[in-house]
Amino acid sequence: MFATEAPSLSFRFSIARESDRSRGRLGILHTPHGIVRTPVFMPVGTQGAVKCVSPDQVEEAGAEIVLANTYHLYLRPGHEIVKEMGGLHAFMSWPRPILTDSGGFQVMSMSSLRRVTEDGVVFRSHLDGSEHFISPEKAIMIQNALGSDIAMALDECIEYPCDRAMVAEAAERTARWAERCMEAHSRAPESRAQALFGIVQGGAVPELRRRSAGQISSIGGFHGYAIGGLSVGEPKLVTYDMVEEVVPLLPSGSPRYLMGVGSPDDIVECAVRGVDMMDSVLPTRLARHGALLTANGRLLIRNAAFAGDGRPIEEDCDCYACRHFSRAYIRHLFKAGEVLGMTLATIHNLRFLSRLVEMVREAIRSGGERLLQEKMREAYRGRE
Amino acid sequence: MFATEAPSLSFRFSIARESDRSRGRLGILHTPHGIVRTPVFMPVGTQGAVKCVSPDQVEEAGAEIVLANTYHLYLRPGHEIVKEMGGLHAFMSWPRPILTDSGGFQVMSMSSLRRVTEDGVVFRSHLDGSEHFISPEKAIMIQNALGSDIAMALDECIEYPCDRAMVAEAAERTARWAERCMEAHSRAPESRAQALFGIVQGGAVPELRRRSAGQISSIGGFHGYAIGGLSVGEPKLVTYDMVEEVVPLLPSGSPRYLMGVGSPDDIVECAVRGVDMMDSVLPTRLARHGALLTANGRLLIRNAAFAGDGRPIEEDCDCYACRHFSRAYIRHLFKAGEVLGMTLATIHNLRFLSRLVEMVREAIRSGGERLLQEKMREAYRGRE
Repeated sequence: MFATEAPSLSFRFSIARESDRSRGRLGILHTPHGIVRTPVFMPVGTQGAVKCVSPDQVEEAGAEIVLANTYHLYLRPGHEIVKEMGGLHAFMSWPRPILTDSGGFQVMSMSSLRRVTEDGVVFRSHLDGSEHFISPEKAIMIQNALGSDIAMALDECIEYPCDRAMVAEAAERTARWAERCMEAHSRAPESRAQALFGIVQGGAVPELRRRSAGQISSIGGFHGYAIGGLSVGEPKLVTYDMVEEVVPLLPSGSPRYLMGVGSPDDIVECAVRGVDMMDSVLPTRLARHGALLTANGRLLIRNAAFAGDGRPIEEDCDCYACRHFSRAYIRHLFKAGEVLGMTLATIHNLRFLSRLVEMVREAIRSGGERLLQEKMREAYRGRE
Repeated sequence: MFATEAPSLSFRFSIARESDRSRGRLGILHTPHGIVRTPVFMPVGTQGAVKCVSPDQVEEAGAEIVLANTYHLYLRPGHEIVKEMGGLHAFMSWPRPILTDSGGFQVMSMSSLRRVTEDGVVFRSHLDGSEHFISPEKAIMIQNALGSDIAMALDECIEYPCDRAMVAEAAERTARWAERCMEAHSRAPESRAQALFGIVQGGAVPELRRRSAGQISSIGGFHGYAIGGLSVGEPKLVTYDMVEEVVPLLPSGSPRYLMGVGSPDDIVECAVRGVDMMDSVLPTRLARHGALLTANGRLLIRNAAFAGDGRPIEEDCDCYACRHFSRAYIRHLFKAGEVLGMTLATIHNLRFLSRLVEMVREAIRSGGERLLQEKMREAYRGRE
């Protein structure tokens, strides 16, 4: 195993409290761009912008960290441009922490003609068909150029369902690539201000998940550990089971990041299972389709029932949309095709998830996990 | 002629200064929702929302009054809904003054199968083909329900070019409708908090313009006078000529509103010819296509030249977009199809026009009209 010292001095994770009723815990992630309270939900700014909102609106909604996609930014505008413009924080005018993924998932889900070898992945851009090659080393180099606070190791993502042999092979390769990422990262001077997380794979196979967790944990030097390859179509209970398999095998003092999870019930279920960080395009994508998250489930704002409804989306919500506008107005904006409708819906959904993780943290603090789980299960049963 | 006292106590126009170098003047429009300094440019919120921005962004850009379209709001969501929701100010969460047009222009330009009679206009909705009838009395009733600070009389708009007989007939009918609007408005209790402006028509025919100005002025009771039927495809010099014909014939103590004008050079040219208020969708529409207004002319942000340009849109602009983002980032947003690009461009263009009318007011104050005219002519020669 390749082992190295954590290269970044400004990155640290401290656990403030562990629940005695669940695996849930309260933590603080210290990064070069400030702290993040965990459990946390991270809005996604795929192309260097959270869709339909400005960074000050994201901040006002209570987000403490955002995610950006390496695959997209590498293809457009290109990581060199972002670096020239002073790095991703300056480019997108987001002064708080940023996590970049490695591009592995998007290469699998968005590009065509991909060919995975031990070296890396050859793929064609979904934008113009141009051919590109990404290796573990190149994924790190790109993320170094972007200057995110947290970089992710390159992993091999597979489809769900997938046969066991392929799952096993992808998980083994992910482990070998993780070592190469760690080596490349530890050599780069830019990495001094950047944490690196490893990613556990293993599909929906408990044994392979456990093996992958062991392999990634034993590499040493990672600042945190992600659980990848979930939320790709498998039943919710499988997601939860895999989280339960993996969490106990990860170093308990490091942050655990479950990739791609963002429905309200899943956020609660996974946080009480010991997950510290989550991300998903779900809340912003739902918003653009007029599906608003509330404590009582989704509210489909286009419904005729809201045409004359003078109430805000949620009575007790303090977001800009709820403080200023009625359901009737937001419905009108959606019916009329006004972009402002999507903006207000996005602001609300982001605020809802900020408030939800605040509730999760309060539940962990006070032992109220069960109640919150029941509430969100009831509201979102089989909905996302 | 039908004459009436001005019914609204809270509406008043005061002229603070008249230039001795031009017909330009500085005024203050007092409305139930606050004051507006003139000359002013009014952003357009067609469907009860300025496209791609929130009301707080409109306010931050320096807008003091916005326009909304009666035709659109009547068809969707319906003026009754807006009234039920507390009126247009509450509905769209815009606490400052609102001007609503009468719907005349949109009936002509957007609906199909229209039939104009002395009674009013029968037309089919551009949304669902349903048949509707709008009379002068109904245009006032709808605007009463919307609760705007300034309502407009229903006018008959014609195309450009158009033969003289038709222009004359439309102008005559507009004058008769203006009397009916004034009568209907003076009877409605809602009108106590709403000003009513008459509209001068007459196409591009000086004689007809003068006759229409005389007819509308002599009705009495209007709080202001609009010049309609311009900015519909005629050459700029024709627009300026018609303004010069009409302005001296309007009551000098009342605000003069030139409808549909919003390019930077036209704003300057018309303000120095005595126009107090202007509106246009141009700045917001240009923004959505990536055309940014600057003191040196339009900047087409999609151009490859801006790919690595770290400067703001305009160095000396204080808008949110210029304070936080580079041309390279805004170009990236447009290339990537991110809505935030349109939002930032809209914020900038609105701020540019706010700053431009501030410059116009300063020029009128200091006698610097000629210099500003030359500067904007140079920057926007033949561009809009």
